[in-house]
Amino acid sequence: MKDRVAVIGIGCTKFGDRFERSYEELICDAAFEAYDDAGIDPAQIEAAYLGTYLPGSGGGKAAVSLADALRLYDRPITRVENYCATGTDAFRNGCLAIAAGTYDMVLVLGAEKLKDRGGRGIPRLGHPLLARGNTAPGLFALAANRYIHTFGLRRETLAKVAVKNHRNGALNPKAHLRMEVTEEQVLKAPIIAWPFGLFDCCPTTDGAAAAIICRADLAKRFRKAPVLVKGAGLAVTSGRPYFDPTFDYLGFRSTQAAAQQAYAMAGIAPSDIDFAEVHDCFTWTEISNIEDLGFCPKGEGGRLEEEGQTALDGRLPINPSGGLKSFGHPIGASGVRMITECVVQLRGEAGKRQVKDPELGLAHNVGGPGAVSCVVVLGRG
Amino acid sequence: MKDRVAVIGIGCTKFGDRFERSYEELICDAAFEAYDDAGIDPAQIEAAYLGTYLPGSGGGKAAVSLADALRLYDRPITRVENYCATGTDAFRNGCLAIAAGTYDMVLVLGAEKLKDRGGRGIPRLGHPLLARGNTAPGLFALAANRYIHTFGLRRETLAKVAVKNHRNGALNPKAHLRMEVTEEQVLKAPIIAWPFGLFDCCPTTDGAAAAIICRADLAKRFRKAPVLVKGAGLAVTSGRPYFDPTFDYLGFRSTQAAAQQAYAMAGIAPSDIDFAEVHDCFTWTEISNIEDLGFCPKGEGGRLEEEGQTALDGRLPINPSGGLKSFGHPIGASGVRMITECVVQLRGEAGKRQVKDPELGLAHNVGGPGAVSCVVVLGRG
Repeated sequence: MKDRVAVIGIGCTKFGDRFERSYEELICDAAFEAYDDAGIDPAQIEAAYLGTYLPGSGGGKAAVSLADALRLYDRPITRVENYCATGTDAFRNGCLAIAAGTYDMVLVLGAEKLKDRGGRGIPRLGHPLLARGNTAPGLFALAANRYIHTFGLRRETLAKVAVKNHRNGALNPKAHLRMEVTEEQVLKAPIIAWPFGLFDCCPTTDGAAAAIICRADLAKRFRKAPVLVKGAGLAVTSGRPYFDPTFDYLGFRSTQAAAQQAYAMAGIAPSDIDFAEVHDCFTWTEISNIEDLGFCPKGEGGRLEEEGQTALDGRLPINPSGGLKSFGHPIGASGVRMITECVVQLRGEAGKRQVKDPELGLAHNVGGPGAVSCVVVLGRG
Repeated sequence: MKDRVAVIGIGCTKFGDRFERSYEELICDAAFEAYDDAGIDPAQIEAAYLGTYLPGSGGGKAAVSLADALRLYDRPITRVENYCATGTDAFRNGCLAIAAGTYDMVLVLGAEKLKDRGGRGIPRLGHPLLARGNTAPGLFALAANRYIHTFGLRRETLAKVAVKNHRNGALNPKAHLRMEVTEEQVLKAPIIAWPFGLFDCCPTTDGAAAAIICRADLAKRFRKAPVLVKGAGLAVTSGRPYFDPTFDYLGFRSTQAAAQQAYAMAGIAPSDIDFAEVHDCFTWTEISNIEDLGFCPKGEGGRLEEEGQTALDGRLPINPSGGLKSFGHPIGASGVRMITECVVQLRGEAGKRQVKDPELGLAHNVGGPGAVSCVVVLGRG
């Protein structure tokens, strides 16, 4: 698949409390921005993929509600769901459909309305045998505590991740929580699930993002410098890592495996990556993920954060967009939103949050929690 | 994609009230039967697709619960959802992943537990503005009544579809309702939504099905006569046909469009098809579908049924398996189960329900209701 698929258009809504826009409206806002960005008419789209985790009551509205709204008449629209890796996996499947030679141009969408779910909210995670506390903060905190015990990580280091990502997000007009926070604010925030205080957790967010991809050999018709898909990987590991007796609570094998698949396809090493959008649902998750992605040995992620290596002007900027932490996390949208950030950065159009002259960017989702990861590597054409 | 993907293994559970087997167990029953049928080890599977419409509470358990059970360690497993077209669309995406050249061998799964959903049941269908009656029987009955009014179809003809499909299903050890019914029984059954009596409706069913596909050029290593994928199409039409002012209530454009895509890819005409597994969620749906698939002009489907042309020994056998009507309809499983029937028939291994010497078979799902259809054409290698 390497170098056979190009991204020629992107779109992303303002993330946040979007009570004033419906699910379909958010998707259209992102899609029509992408149509315009690519300079195409919807009639040129031959197939679409939609990443949504919770499409409303019992599977309610998803692909079938979109044909008219997106001006995609009688075309294929497939919904992909893979927990918090939904968005990147939708993108991966769009790329496979192009690489198959069946479609020349595909629209990839990610969208979620999390604030409008009435009393239902996000369902409990984890295994049915797990009782109280099997929420995302609870389960990621279990791993974070073990990690802290093993490597001596301090809450001050976790707080630095939040400070950095909010600093980046404050530069981003589309971020949900567009504000800086201080290390003191993060440390003094109410505890959600120790060691995570409120500012260690990403918010609950509405939003949608879109990417238009096409055959790489056709891409120059639409853009002078299209961004190319270099590699993609998806890995599902043990049903629930928390029930796997070999799980060490120090990181997620799914991320390691998905990254290996993507690097092998791209023919690169982790050290070739210039910046990454990484799944920072909690501050600890970013630290663990950058280790699992191979950017540093296990246990040294905190040091990278402490030394500022992951800052916008650091050696390896992580989450220049603001990440899930500040940009927000509408589950199915996040992966596609990460792709749009990678494209903006690789085009050199990120303005105040521009990473210096990047060649290769990476987008990474982990979900399940921990059971599934998806990694996409994008590069300048 | 034509002739580039082969089916080398299939598996299917007994369909029915499967309270004694969990969702994951049903999937494993189907998958391990398929591993055995292909003569492969799970380690040879490089990626998997899972079609499930309602994976438990709020998106609960789907792809991430399967890795260990299926012996697929650190591999990609993607859930696809597309209403009642979920199973065939999962298969279509598995085929695209092979055609992309990224994976040599892929496992496609379809599964649903509909009997274990507690008080929740199947969610209401249709548009949120629709109030009472927006169930599957209610919405399909709206179209059936208009069709009856326009073409003068009689309930006796609807009943003949049920009689035929139950006759086929009675020959099928894995069918849910493995029994024959008489025309009188069908006509005298309690009315669910006029013109549909109880026996005009498919049952609510648990079940799982599996197919193993691989690169066509590698297929002969595994089977002397693999079945080839000739074409596939997916079409999403107007968000809800019932809200489209141009909808004539006489059939579904999504089926017409998906069939055209599949026929064009295969380079065939509808008249080349030797038998078809068609989405007979209600007796009327089969009649309308065989018209939309191009097997006869609109309004003449009833005559084909009346004349016995769709019987096992007829000109164009429809639903030799027993169809959704008798075999059952675990939503995400049905499309993959149809693929397994096509393969069994094309191999000439269908025993008492064998269609005479078929070269080309077709599997068709419609969902939404009516908004999405998926068509797959399979042929002898």
